[in-house]
Amino acid sequence: MEPETPKPVQPTPPATPDEVPPGRAPAAPPPATPAPAAPVAELITIQDFARMHLRVARVLDVRDHPNANKLYILDVDLGPELGKRQLVAGLKPFMPPEALKDKLVVVVTNIEPAVLRGERSEGMLLAAQDGATVVPLTVAAPVAPGSKIR
Amino acid sequence: MEPETPKPVQPTPPATPDEVPPGRAPAAPPPATPAPAAPVAELITIQDFARMHLRVARVLDVRDHPNANKLYILDVDLGPELGKRQLVAGLKPFMPPEALKDKLVVVVTNIEPAVLRGERSEGMLLAAQDGATVVPLTVAAPVAPGSKIR
Repeated sequence: MEPETPKPVQPTPPATPDEVPPGRAPAAPPPATPAPAAPVAELITIQDFARMHLRVARVLDVRDHPNANKLYILDVDLGPELGKRQLVAGLKPFMPPEALKDKLVVVVTNIEPAVLRGERSEGMLLAAQDGATVVPLTVAAPVAPGSKIR
Repeated sequence: MEPETPKPVQPTPPATPDEVPPGRAPAAPPPATPAPAAPVAELITIQDFARMHLRVARVLDVRDHPNANKLYILDVDLGPELGKRQLVAGLKPFMPPEALKDKLVVVVTNIEPAVLRGERSEGMLLAAQDGATVVPLTVAAPVAPGSKIR
């Protein structure tokens, strides 16, 4: 239930922020070469999409991960049904803690829990990446934490 | 490649806005009874998540669907790689067109294309539902259309 991640896989300095997944620390190194431009994407069905549980969460607290200089540990409120959870997210190179605190974010709630450098992560925070800029998803107007996405 | 949806499945008036999927018109009626509260969710892997292609899009145009009173037809810009696409989204009961026009939204880009009451939909716009309120997802700060979510 709590797979220990393999030992850290970031022996090189963070020269390319593009390779840092913002929502969660990498479990494996990225492929050495980029994929060819715009191959035909595998199509998914609405049923495939429905397997992914996405909800709005409010960020209650943000603190530095004690053992990883790119990671934050976040406590989030996922509403009355799911309650509070801890997430680990690779957002530290991109924003200060106060840019996340109290904000509404979007979380994949049923992704396998993982332990990332010793800290439990029970969900994946979604963010958009535009070159070296990473910006969390949010909602266009306030809704209650726990609101489902579809 | 362009499956025609079955005939409309909304014989009753929209008494319960909760049942209107905001991102896309329903392909089948919802189950008659709600699921039991908070069963253990099926877990998914990061690889499962990666099968879903999510990108930021800018809404270029919003117009009424000619044959469905809850649906909008949107033209969106998905950036240089994917270009412009038409989406059909069940957002009309929840917001006027000007609340969407020119906004940044989040789209599942590799969901099977569908024809919804005669109009082609090439993606699913994501929105949060909080009771009778439906609010599109967006980004916490501007990024380029086509930016990937992860």
